[in-house]
Amino acid sequence: MSAQTGMRFELLRRDGAARRGRLRFARGDVETPAFMPVGTYGTVKAMTPEQLEEIGVEIILGNTFHLYLRPGLAVIEAHQGLHRFMHWRRPILTDSGGFQVWSLKDMRSITEEGARFRSPVDGAEVFLSPEESMRIQRVLASDIAMSFDECTPYPASESEARSSMELSMRWALRGYRAYYASEPPGTLFGIVQGGVHRNLREASLAALEDIGFAGLSIGGLAVGESETERCEVLERLTPLMPAHKPRYLMGVGRPEDIVEAVRRGVDMFDCVMPTRHARNAHLFTRTGVVNIRNAVHQRETGPVEEGCACYTCRNYSRSYLRHLDKCGEILGSHLNTVHNLHFYERLMAEIRGAIDAGRFAAYAEEFYRLLGRRPEEPPAG
Amino acid sequence: MSAQTGMRFELLRRDGAARRGRLRFARGDVETPAFMPVGTYGTVKAMTPEQLEEIGVEIILGNTFHLYLRPGLAVIEAHQGLHRFMHWRRPILTDSGGFQVWSLKDMRSITEEGARFRSPVDGAEVFLSPEESMRIQRVLASDIAMSFDECTPYPASESEARSSMELSMRWALRGYRAYYASEPPGTLFGIVQGGVHRNLREASLAALEDIGFAGLSIGGLAVGESETERCEVLERLTPLMPAHKPRYLMGVGRPEDIVEAVRRGVDMFDCVMPTRHARNAHLFTRTGVVNIRNAVHQRETGPVEEGCACYTCRNYSRSYLRHLDKCGEILGSHLNTVHNLHFYERLMAEIRGAIDAGRFAAYAEEFYRLLGRRPEEPPAG
Repeated sequence: MSAQTGMRFELLRRDGAARRGRLRFARGDVETPAFMPVGTYGTVKAMTPEQLEEIGVEIILGNTFHLYLRPGLAVIEAHQGLHRFMHWRRPILTDSGGFQVWSLKDMRSITEEGARFRSPVDGAEVFLSPEESMRIQRVLASDIAMSFDECTPYPASESEARSSMELSMRWALRGYRAYYASEPPGTLFGIVQGGVHRNLREASLAALEDIGFAGLSIGGLAVGESETERCEVLERLTPLMPAHKPRYLMGVGRPEDIVEAVRRGVDMFDCVMPTRHARNAHLFTRTGVVNIRNAVHQRETGPVEEGCACYTCRNYSRSYLRHLDKCGEILGSHLNTVHNLHFYERLMAEIRGAIDAGRFAAYAEEFYRLLGRRPEEPPAG
Repeated sequence: MSAQTGMRFELLRRDGAARRGRLRFARGDVETPAFMPVGTYGTVKAMTPEQLEEIGVEIILGNTFHLYLRPGLAVIEAHQGLHRFMHWRRPILTDSGGFQVWSLKDMRSITEEGARFRSPVDGAEVFLSPEESMRIQRVLASDIAMSFDECTPYPASESEARSSMELSMRWALRGYRAYYASEPPGTLFGIVQGGVHRNLREASLAALEDIGFAGLSIGGLAVGESETERCEVLERLTPLMPAHKPRYLMGVGRPEDIVEAVRRGVDMFDCVMPTRHARNAHLFTRTGVVNIRNAVHQRETGPVEEGCACYTCRNYSRSYLRHLDKCGEILGSHLNTVHNLHFYERLMAEIRGAIDAGRFAAYAEEFYRLLGRRPEEPPAG
């Protein structure tokens, strides 16, 4: 089988295992390594699409599970897809809903056919299967769709991890057939599972390659394993992945997690951290996370981060941001989100520049020097 | 006494009692009749300053009472005033705190000296006087400051209204002396009180004119009196007011209230209605207020108002706005606020255009024809 696809991936350069690439879509290019802000309900929280573009966001993520429950497919269909609904003209990647179903834990039952659960919105019984997830993602009309899979929990014995992975692979094939049964709106990615078990990861990758996905995700990480375990999975897996396909590490993560995954050959990332942290007054800087709620910032007239070119840092003081947070002002959530997303986009731009210049290792060194700790050290505060 | 002032008011044209004018400040011009969005805590809720400018806002209002309690004067002082603190470069009018103190009702005691109350933020005892209000407004460095007054309740007997008004006039003089004791940052307005009693309103106006304020507010309205009573107060009062001074009707109001007050010679308005309504999903249109939360909008792919040129109507459907509201998304509050403030700014621009063209009465007719009811009729829903 071979993937019909509207996406093209160009591998531009390597620097060690790190890769510089470009995803090309009818809706625009995405330079990789790329970070995708999360727009759960058809909005990257507290941001307009124009503001996202202004800080350099080229692709965003939408959540199939959440959009399916609210506003529901009929509403999205009336807008001919998610792009027009939310007024975002660049590419969108949608997840499959698998991870969210898995997160419901006791509220769902999983069979060969699919997953049955109660809607957290209204308690109604909902059934998701590979075919149903593809039907939904086709209506969302995302540029990249994801396979419907079961996320293997951590920790899991090898036998548990194997049967979970094998179910995901059968679902991957069913989803692939459903997604490509007629002209698809985008490109479907497969998801490598297998927990922290090397042989299972290899078997999963081989199964996905047999099916013929045009892009590959690495799933089942960032679910409780140690950083060392995560890095080991990546280190062993990425050399086996075909060079001409983009690699997406789902749900990761902190700036240092991204640096370490790029170092091991990953191209794409998503995480709620920059946007969620922003709403909780946690702001990223090169030297660590600043809690703008702290009293120490009360009269600080300087920006969140000296030298930062974001709209927030150019125009507002730490003192003002603290004040907005204390008053629960919407503008505070917005300005904090602008800063954090700008921080992530700048990080990705710097990473891409470093790979282009063949000096990624030196960049990573400098990154940790400013941060004041090494990748394996936990954050101090 | 004569007012030192950095403000100039140009009366450009009359059309019946309606007036077209221009307030000139070092920070920019304000075309009148003008509406001032309310920025209680140093932010017009859910809007950046650039977004306000984009929809034509030329002046905003800040609340002395709220800013005094949060973030407090030391913080504002560290930023050399409210403008830099909140990154707003155009004129700001601050109220005096009098109305907010009055609204505390049982939590305050008022004496000749001033008003003592418990801070709703932390319970601390606070004292506001004419001198203290001026000291605060000088630190805020607003372009227009307001006299500290006692808002006369409604209903009030003539004798209650008289002693309240007379206290406000003594406070007005004390405030004037304090504000202009040294080089002021802006211009102080006097506030006409006197309830719905014609003789008291006249006496109040005469007292303020004796002091020599460069601008005059009409206070103690929009506190429970009928529309007829309010219009009568305006109709009798404005002909007595000097033509060369701007007239500001505080806390008003609905679009139809503004039309009726302009008709009677008022130049300036402020109200939380467009911004507060927006956050409650109530959106203004020429034909009335639309509750975007209603199920009828679930699949409506058209804009809030056909032909509206605001950012929200150009790019988003009623369906999407309803979805954002249902999900409690911050972007919903923002997009709704953009629409409502744009509605108010367009209303003011149309009013100014109508006066310029000598056809304000015809404009008001058309306004009510579209609205489907007359000024004296209560809204249907």
